[in-house]
Amino acid sequence: MSDDIGDLPSHRPLQGLRVLECSSFVAGPSGCMTLATMGADVIRVDPIGGAADHGRWPVSNRTGESLYWSALNRGKRSVCVDLRQPEGRELVVSLATLPGPDAGVIVDNNVGRPWLAYDALVQRRSDLIQVHIQGHPDGRPAVDYTVNAEVGVPDITGPASVAEPVNHVLPAWDLLTGMTAVTALLSALRRRDRTGEGSFLSLALADVALAGVASLGWLAEAAERGDRPRHGNHVYGSFGVDFATLDHHRVMVVALTSRQWKNLRDVTKTDRVFRALEEALQVDLAVETDRYQLRETIAAVLRPWFAARTVDEVTQELDAAQVLWSRYRTMAEAVKELAKVPDGTVVTQLEQPGIGVVTSARSPIRSHGVYTEPRAAPRLGENTDEVLTAVLGLDPHEVSRLHDRGVIGGER
Amino acid sequence: MSDDIGDLPSHRPLQGLRVLECSSFVAGPSGCMTLATMGADVIRVDPIGGAADHGRWPVSNRTGESLYWSALNRGKRSVCVDLRQPEGRELVVSLATLPGPDAGVIVDNNVGRPWLAYDALVQRRSDLIQVHIQGHPDGRPAVDYTVNAEVGVPDITGPASVAEPVNHVLPAWDLLTGMTAVTALLSALRRRDRTGEGSFLSLALADVALAGVASLGWLAEAAERGDRPRHGNHVYGSFGVDFATLDHHRVMVVALTSRQWKNLRDVTKTDRVFRALEEALQVDLAVETDRYQLRETIAAVLRPWFAARTVDEVTQELDAAQVLWSRYRTMAEAVKELAKVPDGTVVTQLEQPGIGVVTSARSPIRSHGVYTEPRAAPRLGENTDEVLTAVLGLDPHEVSRLHDRGVIGGER
Repeated sequence: MSDDIGDLPSHRPLQGLRVLECSSFVAGPSGCMTLATMGADVIRVDPIGGAADHGRWPVSNRTGESLYWSALNRGKRSVCVDLRQPEGRELVVSLATLPGPDAGVIVDNNVGRPWLAYDALVQRRSDLIQVHIQGHPDGRPAVDYTVNAEVGVPDITGPASVAEPVNHVLPAWDLLTGMTAVTALLSALRRRDRTGEGSFLSLALADVALAGVASLGWLAEAAERGDRPRHGNHVYGSFGVDFATLDHHRVMVVALTSRQWKNLRDVTKTDRVFRALEEALQVDLAVETDRYQLRETIAAVLRPWFAARTVDEVTQELDAAQVLWSRYRTMAEAVKELAKVPDGTVVTQLEQPGIGVVTSARSPIRSHGVYTEPRAAPRLGENTDEVLTAVLGLDPHEVSRLHDRGVIGGER
Repeated sequence: MSDDIGDLPSHRPLQGLRVLECSSFVAGPSGCMTLATMGADVIRVDPIGGAADHGRWPVSNRTGESLYWSALNRGKRSVCVDLRQPEGRELVVSLATLPGPDAGVIVDNNVGRPWLAYDALVQRRSDLIQVHIQGHPDGRPAVDYTVNAEVGVPDITGPASVAEPVNHVLPAWDLLTGMTAVTALLSALRRRDRTGEGSFLSLALADVALAGVASLGWLAEAAERGDRPRHGNHVYGSFGVDFATLDHHRVMVVALTSRQWKNLRDVTKTDRVFRALEEALQVDLAVETDRYQLRETIAAVLRPWFAARTVDEVTQELDAAQVLWSRYRTMAEAVKELAKVPDGTVVTQLEQPGIGVVTSARSPIRSHGVYTEPRAAPRLGENTDEVLTAVLGLDPHEVSRLHDRGVIGGER
C-alpha cells in the first residue's frame, strides 16, 4: 500500500494556487511548506540578506548553512526585497494582491509594518485573504517556549521527582499554529471561490496553545479539580509507561483499550497476578480508569518481565501478542534504522543546494497509498528575478535597475 | 482589535459542507472539531454506547462525564449506529457517500472495517474524498506516546541530569495529525470543486512525527552530527532559559533577536559584564550562535538579577524594557487569571449538556479581529434521529423500527 513513490495529480491538489508568505521562524513557514508540498506556488519574501531565522540552528557541519531554514522552506520560491524602500514595499504589495481566483492570498507574521496590514492591502484587492500570525492576540511577541510556560504544560511535564517546570523541546505550538493557519486559509479560499468575499483572519500562538489544551478538556479539568500532579512517563488517564530491558534499552508500552490490556497480561503471563489484585483491591482493570489509578502497581508487576529480556526478545514477544508499544530510540538511531528500510518510508534523502545530500522527509500525506518526493528549498533570493518578470510582468531591464538601486536582492 | 465576540459569515467559511467523521481519540476528532468551528456540519458516528474514547480522562467531578470527549466534539452532531449489523453499516456508507459538492467527504481512523475502506466507498460515489488516519503507514496501531518514543524527542526532553527518556505530556503529534488531515481534506475539496475528481488520502501519526522533526532540520542534524545533548529548559540554538525570582516564581526569558538580547542586557544592567566577556572570550553575543554556545555563562550572569526581585518587580521591569519573556503558571493559575480578564480572551465558559458550565475555549482563529462563541458537544447519539430523517431522508416510522431492532442508538 504505502511503499510506492510517485507524483499523482491528487498529490498536487493546490496546483495553480499562489500564496505570498511574509513570515519567519516556525509557524508561518511550516504551514506554507505544507501548501507547497500540495502543489501551491508559495513565494516567500525576505529582506535582503534574510530574516532573523535565516541562519538558525541546526546548521550544517559541511557548509554552515541552516538545516532548519532549508527544511522549513522546501518547495517554495524565494524573493529578496529591501522592505525599507517604498519601491520594495510596492513590489511586495503587488505580489500579495495579484488578481485572479488563484492569487490574492497572503500569510504573514509582521509587526509594525502598516503597509502590509489588511487595511492597506484590501485597498488594492477587495477580496484579499490574509492570515496574520501573532504571538499574543494583542500583538505582543511570544514564542513557543513562552506560551508553553503561560499555559501550564511545563508544570505537568517530566519526572515526578523534578520540582521545576520542564519545557518541551518540540515547538509543538508553532507547528500546530502553522497548520491551523493554512486550514483557516483554505477554508476562507473555499468561501471566496463561492461568494467572492475575502477574509482577514488572525491567530495568535498563545491562543492556539490555550485552545489546544482546552480541546483536550484540560482547562475544564484544572477549573474543576485544580492542578494535575506531574507523573513522569505515565500516560494520563489510562495505562502506559516505559520499562527498561535487560540490555538497557527502554520501551514505551500502552494499554488504552481492554483488548490491548488483555494482550499485555497474556504475553507477560501476569494474568493471574492481576486477577488476584482485582479481587483483593475490588477493582476491574479492564476499566481504563482503574488501570490509571493503579498505574504504579501495574508497572511494578510488569517491570521484572521486561528486566529479564533483551529488547530483541521483547520485540518478538510483544509484536506476536499485538501489544501496543515502541522502543525508544534517539534521533540518530531513528535516522540510521530508517536508512536501512528499502525506499518507501516518509524519511528520504534530498539534494539541498548549498548543503548537499540531507536527510529529509516526504509529505506524510499519501495519495492512494503513494508518497511524493520532496523538493529542495531555494537558495535565499534564488527566484527574485524570475518572480518579478514572470509573475509581476516586469521588464528584465527594470529588474536589473532594481538590483542596481538595491531595491531587490538575490541571484541575478 | 481582539476583544470582540461575534458571528460573522467569515467565521463560518465552511457553512454547508458536510463531513462524516468515523474516528476516535485525538487526531481525527480534533481536526474535525476545527472544521465544525468553521461552520461545517460534522456528523460523528459512534458505535452504540460510544467508542473506546467516550469515557476518557479527564472526567468531570460533577457528573463523571468525560471533559475530554465533550471538548473534542464541540459543535458536531452525534449519531449512534450498530456497526456490526449490515443495516447499520449501510447507514454509515450512505452518510459517507451523500451526493452533491458539499458532501461525500469522510475522515476515519478505522482498522479492519473493509466496508468503510475507500475501495468499497468509491463504488457508491466515484468522486469521494476520504482522509484515513493511521498509527503506522502499514496499518499497525500507534499512539502519540509510542511515536514520540520512536522519533527520538524524549531523548532530548527534560533536565540534563535525567538519564531516562522524558515523554512530553501534550499529545502534540495527535493534534498536528488532526490539523494536517483537515488541511489535506480542504485541499482535496478544492481540487474536486474544480476538476470533479475525488481523492483517497492517508496519513499516519508516525509519519507526521518523522516529517515534523524533519521539517525543523532535526533529522538532517542527527544524520550529520549525531545526537544533540539534552539540555533542560534552554532554547536550542539561541539564548532562552528559565529563572527563579525572589518569591519563588519562575520565568522563561528568551533572546532570539539581537534587539531582544540588547533589551535584556540593558534592563538587567549587565551590558558591561557581557562586553568584558565578549572581549575576554573573543565572541560576539549579538550573534545567536555565540549566545547559544555561552548559554550557561549568560544564564549565570543574569540569575542574580532575577533572584533579587519579586515576580511583580520582574514583570514591571521586563515589560517596560520590551524583553521577550513569560511567567510560568500552572493550568489552574492560568484558568483563574484568564477568568479575571474582561470577556474577550480565547478562553471562555460554555454550558455543556451532561456536565454543566465548563471552562472551554473559542476558536483561536479570529475573523476581522473578532472571536466566535464555541458550541457545546452533543450528547452521545443526540442527533441520530434528526440526521437519519433530515439528511438521509428516512421516514420517522422507519427510524423507529431501526431503534427497535437495535440498529441505531441514542435519543429517540
